[in-house]
Amino acid sequence: MSAVTGAAPDIAAVEAAAARLSGRVRATPLLSSPMLDAVAGRRVLVKAECLQHTGAFKARGAWAAVSALPEGTRGVLALSSGNHAQGVAWAARAHGLRAVVLMPSDAPAVKIAGTRALGAEVVLYDRAREDRDALGARLAAEEGLALIRPYDDREVIAGQASVGLEIAAQAAEAGVARADVLVCCGGGGLTAGIALALEGRAPGLRPRPVEPEGFDDTARSLASGRIERNAATSGGLCDAILTAQPGRLTFPIMAARCGPGLVVTEAEVLAAMALAFSALKIVLEPGGAVALAAALFHGAQVEGDAVVVVASGGNVAPETFARALREGARPAA
Amino acid sequence: MSAVTGAAPDIAAVEAAAARLSGRVRATPLLSSPMLDAVAGRRVLVKAECLQHTGAFKARGAWAAVSALPEGTRGVLALSSGNHAQGVAWAARAHGLRAVVLMPSDAPAVKIAGTRALGAEVVLYDRAREDRDALGARLAAEEGLALIRPYDDREVIAGQASVGLEIAAQAAEAGVARADVLVCCGGGGLTAGIALALEGRAPGLRPRPVEPEGFDDTARSLASGRIERNAATSGGLCDAILTAQPGRLTFPIMAARCGPGLVVTEAEVLAAMALAFSALKIVLEPGGAVALAAALFHGAQVEGDAVVVVASGGNVAPETFARALREGARPAA
Repeated sequence: MSAVTGAAPDIAAVEAAAARLSGRVRATPLLSSPMLDAVAGRRVLVKAECLQHTGAFKARGAWAAVSALPEGTRGVLALSSGNHAQGVAWAARAHGLRAVVLMPSDAPAVKIAGTRALGAEVVLYDRAREDRDALGARLAAEEGLALIRPYDDREVIAGQASVGLEIAAQAAEAGVARADVLVCCGGGGLTAGIALALEGRAPGLRPRPVEPEGFDDTARSLASGRIERNAATSGGLCDAILTAQPGRLTFPIMAARCGPGLVVTEAEVLAAMALAFSALKIVLEPGGAVALAAALFHGAQVEGDAVVVVASGGNVAPETFARALREGARPAA
Repeated sequence: MSAVTGAAPDIAAVEAAAARLSGRVRATPLLSSPMLDAVAGRRVLVKAECLQHTGAFKARGAWAAVSALPEGTRGVLALSSGNHAQGVAWAARAHGLRAVVLMPSDAPAVKIAGTRALGAEVVLYDRAREDRDALGARLAAEEGLALIRPYDDREVIAGQASVGLEIAAQAAEAGVARADVLVCCGGGGLTAGIALALEGRAPGLRPRPVEPEGFDDTARSLASGRIERNAATSGGLCDAILTAQPGRLTFPIMAARCGPGLVVTEAEVLAAMALAFSALKIVLEPGGAVALAAALFHGAQVEGDAVVVVASGGNVAPETFARALREGARPAA
């Protein structure tokens, strides 16, 4: 089985996906607050993708991929315990398709329940004894399911690019023509999609991936010019964006279009979550707050009078959010 | 000094205010989630005014009032320690006007700091020894400031009505022509404004005020047909909407246009805050969550296949929000 689905998308694929998404996904608001501007030392515009269906941008790519499947497709398969699984379950249900999600048996009960609540069948496997990819390939073949990859999929990247199309229009409306666009980055589907959209619609906006310390594979890969791996792929606070390495489809797109990557600490992520709570009244998960953390606490590495931040998701356990409110609180500006 | 500012607004005043607000306040999204629909037993559409500038709908009425002041006005005065003060400070600064806010000396430090951060001058008074209204009248006269009342002001009500204009358009887009519209209610400025807008633009949508137990002056006033008072006006969780009685301008507007009031418990408010966190990824303050609590837990008193909920604000202390996550948590649907 090939490790990618389809060829790299171009701006035509991005626009075709956007047409299929129209009226199906939310055009999320671009929020701002004097408090964030004061902390960052420049104007901060926050693209609130936590307000997207299923609580994360993943609903966009999932819709784009599911809506592009050939007629007669019987169902879809996702290998994920996180936001991608929920996006695929949501899109499949709306298309009247069966959705199967392969999850490790030690996944949090709340995530299993959440995925089932969206109508998906959850198949559990033993993380220590079973090979997820082999199991997925067998399931897909035996049950006639189409595998929807989380980022190395032409239509998924084209779907995430709709975030970039909206940013291009909203930044223009806000009078911002030149700025860095900071994007929370795991496998790079969102970053690559946004990069394609901005290149086509707002060339003065420069995409830059942001990652947590210890999981900065994309920043290092952009610096070296080839795909670099992380030493670890789990154990961090930012579970939604901990991948082994940039994708095979996503990396060349990012390498040709992105500025240097940024890296933030977990303490900065918690502080960004607390500030998004008090200044914007939105809920961010750790992996969805890394770009805001970079804008707030690494401003010296950012260029321009304004910065755009993609707040990519808000699926966070109450205990983790309460921890951010406790540990991440800063004195009022 | 009269207790009200101007005459009751009509739909022409509402539309004039909306024109002044255009591009200045945010058109907030109407959010939804399968999880909320499942708990409520019907479709729930949430107007997320917590995402408004200053974190509450109050910015709308404040902008409408400040933008209607005669030329030559030197500054404005607000008697409030809460969301209204922040709205007035925000609108005054944008108009280049001085803003003075009269606050009790025992107001929370974070609210004093927050109001100052928006550029207002905070004047503290001794709640036990000084008469706030007399002090305000003297300040206004001596300093040449225009008093902006929180709800008994023609332009403030007309400004809050813009929430109703947006609901009318967004509900139509969502295919909802008949529904109850539940509104968090203190003095009634928001409820009255929405009632005027819906009467003009969406007569199938019926406004209904929602209040916390023990502070249900509006529900009782609507039932008896005359203004009723609360026994207490402080001490409750929902500080933003604890008023002594409905306003003199707002009550007749509500009495002619609203369905019966609804009353919720503080435990239901905490549960609604926790569900808004997990299902919608928005931050609600207790007073901003009462309407959602009514939709979720008092559905038998609501009519129709869908219900619209106004989530009016999100200015909540981190400790209170953490309490809602702890005490308000429910098992996953």
